Amino acid sequence: MTLSTPSAAAVHTPKVLESLDPAIAAHVCNVFAATPFMNALGVRVMVVAPGRVETAMTVLPEHRQQHGLVHAGVMASLADHTAGACASTAAPGIDVLSIEFKVNMLAPAQHGELYCIAQTLRAGRRVSVIEADVFSIVPGTVATIADRVVRATVTLSVRARG
Amino acid sequence: MTLSTPSAAAVHTPKVLESLDPAIAAHVCNVFAATPFMNALGVRVMVVAPGRVETAMTVLPEHRQQHGLVHAGVMASLADHTAGACASTAAPGIDVLSIEFKVNMLAPAQHGELYCIAQTLRAGRRVSVIEADVFSIVPGTVATIADRVVRATVTLSVRARG
Amino acid sequence: MTLSTPSAAAVHTPKVLESLDPAIAAHVCNVFAATPFMNALGVRVMVVAPGRVETAMTVLPEHRQQHGLVHAGVMASLADHTAGACASTAAPGIDVLSIEFKVNMLAPAQHGELYCIAQTLRAGRRVSVIEADVFSIVPGTVATIADRVVRATVTLSVRARG
Amino acid sequence: MTLSTPSAAAVHTPKVLESLDPAIAAHVCNVFAATPFMNALGVRVMVVAPGRVETAMTVLPEHRQQHGLVHAGVMASLADHTAGACASTAAPGIDVLSIEFKVNMLAPAQHGELYCIAQTLRAGRRVSVIEADVFSIVPGTVATIADRVVRATVTLSVRARG
Repeated sequence: MTLSTPSAAAVHTPKVLESLDPAIAAHVCNVFAATPFMNALGVRVMVVAPGRVETAMTVLPEHRQQHGLVHAGVMASLADHTAGACASTAAPGIDVLSIEFKVNMLAPAQHGELYCIAQTLRAGRRVSVIEADVFSIVPGTVATIADRVVRATVTLSVRARG
Repeated sequence: MTLSTPSAAAVHTPKVLESLDPAIAAHVCNVFAATPFMNALGVRVMVVAPGRVETAMTVLPEHRQQHGLVHAGVMASLADHTAGACASTAAPGIDVLSIEFKVNMLAPAQHGELYCIAQTLRAGRRVSVIEADVFSIVPGTVATIADRVVRATVTLSVRARG
Repeated sequence: MTLSTPSAAAVHTPKVLESLDPAIAAHVCNVFAATPFMNALGVRVMVVAPGRVETAMTVLPEHRQQHGLVHAGVMASLADHTAGACASTAAPGIDVLSIEFKVNMLAPAQHGELYCIAQTLRAGRRVSVIEADVFSIVPGTVATIADRVVRATVTLSVRARG
Repeated sequence: MTLSTPSAAAVHTPKVLESLDPAIAAHVCNVFAATPFMNALGVRVMVVAPGRVETAMTVLPEHRQQHGLVHAGVMASLADHTAGACASTAAPGIDVLSIEFKVNMLAPAQHGELYCIAQTLRAGRRVSVIEADVFSIVPGTVATIADRVVRATVTLSVRARG
């Protein structure tokens, strides 16, 4: 049993909002590229903006639990890491680390794509709080509220990088 | 980038407490065997007892985040699934599904083994609540409080199987 | 030391959206009226709508902690109960009970009014999930994102009343 | 409707473990005495020890919700504040503030006493994590696992006082 990275991950180029400091955008993308577990899951960065990051991944057989649904741990991992990226957009030169997160499973996800939207609730000097929703969608369609399968709230510690 | 299952997973035989209904013990082991994501992470069932399940997994490079620490999502996945198994020990013929969970990262984990101990806080007819701690240990040693890296609390929905 | 109910609570009439079943609206208002702890805190129902309830309370000296800020427990109580009311709007004849909640303190609140907006994330047959935000506002003004002091996520068990 | 403080609160003297720095013990007791909301609920400090604080309060009619059970917000308030006191025992001269907490209701509480036991999961330089359990007991009896009605996990920010 192995986790194979969808090849799309390697070639995908995220949309970066012009209003975002390019150094921050580069940092966010570099962190995803340098995170083995995100690569193993096949997570792609889709959008990087001030206070908001969006990511996607393709559901593969090895992401499932015993009933064929996407494992809660897969969705939690996606939400947590996207939240971390989102918290990183608050300022240049910061590093963030998850202190804790809480995940509510709102509906089951089975196949297609998982799309995660993380948004900043609080960007603090020491502690940030991010809301991250995961949507289960057919590839290429837009996520709506009806497709939301997970709501996560992530608390992160913020420090200067160095 | 792939996730390779430690071969130990295939051959490991969990300790089952005699006080546990053998049908329940078999169900717990079957659920782990039938869960692709747990197999992909290399999770082994170590102990199955009434109201308590213990699991272990070997930290591999693909489980890490950008700083070389074990990804919070890996530890959350281990805690969530072990909690589900623990909730399943409450009665024969039940099926459980995570409603939500919360995970606090208490200390970083880097290598060696992750060992998870899940214990029942409430075994209800409709809702169960499980505490799951993850420990970072050197293989073969016993987990102590000082090795605890994660505290998770998991709420599960309980239903009759079938 | 006593908690005195602002007299406004007794005379306040909530706005009820026409699209809401009047029996549900009456139930929500009755539940607040029949809840001693909400009365002790001085909580007023402001808006009742399908999938959404808004409440308010006036900060009094006895709601504070040692630094003069509103106690986290006060805001959590307001969020939890408003979330329960919100979950109750999903269908007539249901009763809800909090299974668990999580509260993030985003900013301190000190005086004036607390205003709570609860919205439905999932309205299930057995389990509902509600997001409840608390805002710290000057009486009579409208709550904005900048005034948000608490984000709560509440999981509730749903049953038929009887 | 008012919240009346049980007179016991004024005269109760907590047990302080000898192994605890007296300056820390005094600080914990002073914080409770200086917290109007804890006084309004009638919370008494019972035990102060390194990494552990125990408190109690008498259930009064105004602490209840619409079904006559103790309101979840009351138990959450007790757990949160006791957790804060517990985090304060880690070192002299620190101040703590709740970042977030999560509360699971394990069983209903109706009358008698609420007894809270808070224990340290992690005492950090910047962030501490405390587990706080609330028990529903008949006055004068000892809390057992069967009496546990709430499990809370509280994350706190730690700073130097000044």
